[in-house]
Amino acid sequence: MSLPAVLPAWLETAVALADAARPIANHYFRSRLSVNSKADQSPVTIADQQIEAVMREILAKAHPDHGILGEEHGPDRTDADFVWVLDPIDGTRAFICGVPTFGTLIALCYRGQPILGVVDHPALGERWVGGTGLPTTWNGEPCQTRACTRLADAYLFATSPDMFKGADADSFTRLTSRAKERRYGLDCFAAGLIAGGHIDAMVETSLQPYDYCALAPVIEQAGGKISDWTGKPLTIHSDGRIAVAATAALHGEILAALAG
Amino acid sequence: MSLPAVLPAWLETAVALADAARPIANHYFRSRLSVNSKADQSPVTIADQQIEAVMREILAKAHPDHGILGEEHGPDRTDADFVWVLDPIDGTRAFICGVPTFGTLIALCYRGQPILGVVDHPALGERWVGGTGLPTTWNGEPCQTRACTRLADAYLFATSPDMFKGADADSFTRLTSRAKERRYGLDCFAAGLIAGGHIDAMVETSLQPYDYCALAPVIEQAGGKISDWTGKPLTIHSDGRIAVAATAALHGEILAALAG
Repeated sequence: MSLPAVLPAWLETAVALADAARPIANHYFRSRLSVNSKADQSPVTIADQQIEAVMREILAKAHPDHGILGEEHGPDRTDADFVWVLDPIDGTRAFICGVPTFGTLIALCYRGQPILGVVDHPALGERWVGGTGLPTTWNGEPCQTRACTRLADAYLFATSPDMFKGADADSFTRLTSRAKERRYGLDCFAAGLIAGGHIDAMVETSLQPYDYCALAPVIEQAGGKISDWTGKPLTIHSDGRIAVAATAALHGEILAALAG
Repeated sequence: MSLPAVLPAWLETAVALADAARPIANHYFRSRLSVNSKADQSPVTIADQQIEAVMREILAKAHPDHGILGEEHGPDRTDADFVWVLDPIDGTRAFICGVPTFGTLIALCYRGQPILGVVDHPALGERWVGGTGLPTTWNGEPCQTRACTRLADAYLFATSPDMFKGADADSFTRLTSRAKERRYGLDCFAAGLIAGGHIDAMVETSLQPYDYCALAPVIEQAGGKISDWTGKPLTIHSDGRIAVAATAALHGEILAALAG
């Protein structure tokens, strides 16, 4: 089995997963649950569970030998060569607050390394898809990162300054004080905006594999660079601190600023 | 002339202004300008100017005796009893960064006090409209703030922590450390989300009249409370520090926390 030969077919599976997730996410987004609902279940929890269940059904039929790592139901055959990494609702707080920038993240990893990624925004109707050797697309059209190479010119995003603690907070402050602009609040949507050529950079911390694996192929195949804070390529085993940039040169400046 | 009698008709003018702004905003949003554009003009600057020019044309025909205070072209007959207060693109940085939460803000003030407001989001297709004595609507449907009365339960938004300086930064930190959650990045969209019953509170500083006047009728007629940080109702002459809450009780807690 050659990886390049199977990728387009498996990308179709990834897109089918995103297609299945969208109506469920949009059904629960901004919904007031009926009084029959369990008191301990929020709309986002129910959406998370239902989406992951539907995705697992699709994968069980399409790729019964692949592993699955999902946010809701945990690991399943994650020692397989191919493992799907699923976050039904990334940006839980955005979802809860009626902010349509939440997303559904779908990745396929080969021996721990992300080779396919989908960043889908059900409420916005925006979808980025990337895979090794295939151009990243936005809503089906090829897209590219923009040409920003200097931190002093960069629009840099993070979900919230509050997530950086201790030494990470110092690194974040040092980094963003050198950027043209720092902005907050977009979760995985910021990665899509980098791939689409709208903004330049993103740093995050405390992420789980299902929060970052899908971003890697989308960013890399759009011309950007993504790694952990030390410059290592992201794998299913990375430490959850990620640095994303529109260009390799900007990525280098970001890593240097984070390091001190 | 009775104010309640003319308001519905003038609200139609306000809606016509928002309708005229939408296609212009969406035309320039995420656009790469042609090489013929002047180098010193960004897409957001051009959109701002074109939208305000179109709005002024509509107002010149509909209400030639009214004043206008616009972000782009400045004050015009602002000593009139009725003054339209216009922000073609609120959330300039969101617009520049491809983030669809930017908005168009339209207010009508009577002797300095906002009596009509439209908060329109061209790229999201969401619009809140409020006027004294009329129920606030979201996309034409009546909407209400939710029932949160305690800061400890409140989801509180601000555009960015970076805008609070000196004593204001202390007030902001004290306030938000007592909230359930603080989040960033939405500009005027946060006010719409409060009116729509999705989030609970918002504080901002350094705003201009065209940034806040439109929010007041939208929030108040949805059941919420809005004022400056000392509790005074917002007028065209307020100091640009605003506190918005889903309920009067929560608003009281917010003012107390800001004060110390």
